[in-house]
Amino acid sequence: MGFFGTRGRVYKPIEEIDLSPDSKETYLRANVKAPRLAGLVVKIFAWILESWILGPIVIYILKRDNLIHKLISFAEFEEPPVFLPKYSSEDAVLKEQESQCVEPDLSPSEQVQQAMHCLPLGQETVLSDPASNFHRWTIQDYSRAYSSGITTPLKVAERFIAMVKESTTGSVEMSFFINHYVEDILRQATESTLRYERGKPISVLDGVPIAVKDEIDCMPYPTTGGTKWLHRLRPCEDDACCVSRLRSCGALLVGKTNMHELGAGTSGINPHYGATRNPYDTGKVAGGSSSGSAAVVSAGLCPVALGVDGGGSVRMPAALCGVVGFKPTFGRISHSGVVPLNWTVGMVGILAGTVEDAFIAYAAISGHLPSDQSISLMPRVSFPVLKSTSSISNLKLAKYGEWFNDCSDEIRSCCKEALDRLCEHYAWKTVEVTVPEIEAMRLAHYTTIASECTAALGPYLEKLNIAELGCDARVGLSIYRSFSSKEYLNAQRLRNRQMQLHMEIFKRADVIVTPTTGATAYPIQNDALKYGELDYINGAAYVRFQIAGNFLGLPAVTIPVGYDKSGMPIGLQFIGPPWSEATLLHLAFAMQCLCAKSYRKPMVFYDLLKQG
Amino acid sequence: MGFFGTRGRVYKPIEEIDLSPDSKETYLRANVKAPRLAGLVVKIFAWILESWILGPIVIYILKRDNLIHKLISFAEFEEPPVFLPKYSSEDAVLKEQESQCVEPDLSPSEQVQQAMHCLPLGQETVLSDPASNFHRWTIQDYSRAYSSGITTPLKVAERFIAMVKESTTGSVEMSFFINHYVEDILRQATESTLRYERGKPISVLDGVPIAVKDEIDCMPYPTTGGTKWLHRLRPCEDDACCVSRLRSCGALLVGKTNMHELGAGTSGINPHYGATRNPYDTGKVAGGSSSGSAAVVSAGLCPVALGVDGGGSVRMPAALCGVVGFKPTFGRISHSGVVPLNWTVGMVGILAGTVEDAFIAYAAISGHLPSDQSISLMPRVSFPVLKSTSSISNLKLAKYGEWFNDCSDEIRSCCKEALDRLCEHYAWKTVEVTVPEIEAMRLAHYTTIASECTAALGPYLEKLNIAELGCDARVGLSIYRSFSSKEYLNAQRLRNRQMQLHMEIFKRADVIVTPTTGATAYPIQNDALKYGELDYINGAAYVRFQIAGNFLGLPAVTIPVGYDKSGMPIGLQFIGPPWSEATLLHLAFAMQCLCAKSYRKPMVFYDLLKQG
Repeated sequence: MGFFGTRGRVYKPIEEIDLSPDSKETYLRANVKAPRLAGLVVKIFAWILESWILGPIVIYILKRDNLIHKLISFAEFEEPPVFLPKYSSEDAVLKEQESQCVEPDLSPSEQVQQAMHCLPLGQETVLSDPASNFHRWTIQDYSRAYSSGITTPLKVAERFIAMVKESTTGSVEMSFFINHYVEDILRQATESTLRYERGKPISVLDGVPIAVKDEIDCMPYPTTGGTKWLHRLRPCEDDACCVSRLRSCGALLVGKTNMHELGAGTSGINPHYGATRNPYDTGKVAGGSSSGSAAVVSAGLCPVALGVDGGGSVRMPAALCGVVGFKPTFGRISHSGVVPLNWTVGMVGILAGTVEDAFIAYAAISGHLPSDQSISLMPRVSFPVLKSTSSISNLKLAKYGEWFNDCSDEIRSCCKEALDRLCEHYAWKTVEVTVPEIEAMRLAHYTTIASECTAALGPYLEKLNIAELGCDARVGLSIYRSFSSKEYLNAQRLRNRQMQLHMEIFKRADVIVTPTTGATAYPIQNDALKYGELDYINGAAYVRFQIAGNFLGLPAVTIPVGYDKSGMPIGLQFIGPPWSEATLLHLAFAMQCLCAKSYRKPMVFYDLLKQG
Repeated sequence: MGFFGTRGRVYKPIEEIDLSPDSKETYLRANVKAPRLAGLVVKIFAWILESWILGPIVIYILKRDNLIHKLISFAEFEEPPVFLPKYSSEDAVLKEQESQCVEPDLSPSEQVQQAMHCLPLGQETVLSDPASNFHRWTIQDYSRAYSSGITTPLKVAERFIAMVKESTTGSVEMSFFINHYVEDILRQATESTLRYERGKPISVLDGVPIAVKDEIDCMPYPTTGGTKWLHRLRPCEDDACCVSRLRSCGALLVGKTNMHELGAGTSGINPHYGATRNPYDTGKVAGGSSSGSAAVVSAGLCPVALGVDGGGSVRMPAALCGVVGFKPTFGRISHSGVVPLNWTVGMVGILAGTVEDAFIAYAAISGHLPSDQSISLMPRVSFPVLKSTSSISNLKLAKYGEWFNDCSDEIRSCCKEALDRLCEHYAWKTVEVTVPEIEAMRLAHYTTIASECTAALGPYLEKLNIAELGCDARVGLSIYRSFSSKEYLNAQRLRNRQMQLHMEIFKRADVIVTPTTGATAYPIQNDALKYGELDYINGAAYVRFQIAGNFLGLPAVTIPVGYDKSGMPIGLQFIGPPWSEATLLHLAFAMQCLCAKSYRKPMVFYDLLKQG
């Protein structure tokens, strides 16, 4: 008889693991044991989990049935814990062909200027291709329209304000924003307009509307984190570093986007600020947690929005809303001024209508403020030269068949077809591999983000009347705070394993390719609106391909490659080794060149540059 | 109403903390709320803590009453967690006067050779001073005796074996060793004797008896960790890195010393292998957890022994047994082959009769094996030039009066007098400072080591019949595994604070000086022998000055400076900034020069070099 009575998985030594396609490592399908709950049932379930004796028992059963005990709590491994997804410079598998190293100590606008040299000329963008039947206006479209006097930032701001109003008063409430202050937007737009009148815009971003997830500090707004109370306990006193960098480029910061409460869910259904609607079908979710940021880009209100990606929270809604989602390497973008919901898995990410726009935003925000010494040593940033994608030769894309195929039929065939076209067109190769222990990694990541969120929010939650929390967040937080220090440490031991295993995979291929999500956007049901919804099965399908980007700190990008039968967007994801941002943007751009002609216009779309 | 109902301490921003002696920061005396338990009561208490409903309630009360809830669990801080006590090279406050940088890639015996050049000539050592009425034989004494043919390693080995036998069969069982294999010792000694006969000893360590704590792998012994079962589940298959380095210098490895079970206590009372007796009074504890290693050095059986220091486990028994205890900077000595009882606070340390011998052993073991890449980037090792202590000028020693004085009257006056003599003799200065949040740091360290021990031993404990564990270890492990991931993370946030605060203190002074322990060795009571003993009050007095050496990874050294009225030794401790080993050894050597004349012979003492 042991102390605990439960036996865990015995992980084999890493050097014995076969990463080839013939590996005996089995792919464990996530078998989520939790029924969909909504409405009053969620409230009752929250109450049960918070009760003294019954709560811990139910949580124990949930954790046992969902393999947390077997794969994490009672597992056996040799590895010591690794607490941060940081790599030594030697790990950088730099095959950054056709990229340009950025000098250190450039200002944000200088970095943007340098990025512009790496982009194709405006006339050449695929989005201006007359054969394309739909495109979203890009940063360069705005910049040219301002510079040529076709319109002004003030006119765009006025249209923006009118259209946001339309989105909140139409037949369906889109719930894009938590806050947008008309006066602040008009003030910024007036200043930007004056700069253009003087012929002195700060950068290509001057006057371009950019929205910010309400988890990132942006003056003069409160930072709600999707709650009704966080901003009272944690007042926003300054711009986050990334916002400050955008502001210094002249960007028009148009408000704080809606999000899943505390980032603790993937649907974007927020009981306080409404369920963000998917512009491709207003009856469906936008995905989360950066739901509003994905939806405003999709609906044409901004070419770029900022999100935060702690467990796919940028890439999932981007894929579901048919836009580009980009999460750079851990530490590449300062976390200063972002609500500390975790310390080791989350990072600011970018949602954009095109790869070029994601790249320009990345150029603006990658790096730190002089006063921010929080992140040290990392390789220099390099920018991809996107002018000619065909010049990159011999790229190898790793694909794990069983994992790649663990998604809906439509996603599978759409992603496969896109990948085949890509490889054929550029003469690149796919390499079959096995990525072991994916489900264990998902659970270890969950253990980690749950533990860190509990510690980070601890003092706030103690001061809180729980009635101020949505019921689904209450359920989440009850499970979040159930983890022991041993479970946390074991999760970090799995992080060690996975970091090593992935570095081995990156010796076989340049990037890993997967669908972005296992399912497309699902319908918003009425019973979810008041108390929120618990749908861990759809949630698991959404996060299935996300975790390496967070738990291992790897950069990743999602690009729209098609639509399912109901017209909902499908994304393809590239995951790279540390500091491979330039390669990933290259790949995404190459994919975009092939797919852009078939991009479709959303059901809800606003055209801010339309004249007259 | 909050989620938890308990309010924690709100830690103020670090930049607002005054570290001057006039600081308003209050010194919180550890007010340990746990009665001494021994005998059957410990067994019953263990059973209560392991029970399903009552156990968690009792542990909750213990944690609440001992301020863990207030200072850790529900506390509020701004800082993110820092998981490892690692510093950037810029943090190295290198004032390494009179020291010599060691070239990289030297072999252990080459490093020892280089160290020898830094030492005073044999004749000049204080220990050969005819005015000294007692001294232990040093490494150089052994080496000279072998080289001159006065004795041989084989003769010493035979005397050693006879004397260990005497220590186990006399009126009092000293319980020095868990295992020592006569044949293996004689085999090594024979080989060493041959090397001396050929005139080719490997190094000054050739044939010198060195003992190893039974937490460190050393062939051909099992590694018990002071338990009856660990070696069954974790077979010892190779020398630990530090042992391998010593062996390559020709050291005579004489066996595995007794220790507190799993290192989980400070008394050295082991219910399976006996209570290690203090050579200065066989009725008293040797301290722990490296009890045997301290006692064998104290009793003259070895000039040097290895220990492991996760919470003062080298320095406490060294001070209580009247020998030198040295714990280098975190990461300086490879942890490879040490039982992983924790990952972020423990490290191999050295127990020795003199500072010179601690230094020679440090020269042998500091560094890694070529195959061991586990620890990266650290500044080069430097060795102190001990030939002339008077040449170091302007040293500043930080002293926090309230903390320094929180010990028994005799320790206080003895340490104060020694410190005054030191400063007067060398014209050094003490600087009064305030070290804030010491008790919070102690609790954060306890939370950390408890959590990591639980995770590290998890799979072993699951396979174990709890009856194989000592009752005091069972109590310890029950509390150890009670910590939540939030408590662990909050402890790491305190680590971040304390690392920053200590680096500020080291801007004001070169080292921090404290008594090593708050109490001297206490009597072993008969009721403690079978089930062990729980004496958290004496335990807290022992660890009071230890924690910065572990939780913050700082190097520290203890040196005997006197005795209390009952003749029990008293130690003084110097704690330095990262990588200040050379300065610390300088200081300890200077102190030794002043104190050595008054060193007393223990009640139990063996003279291995005595002729005839």
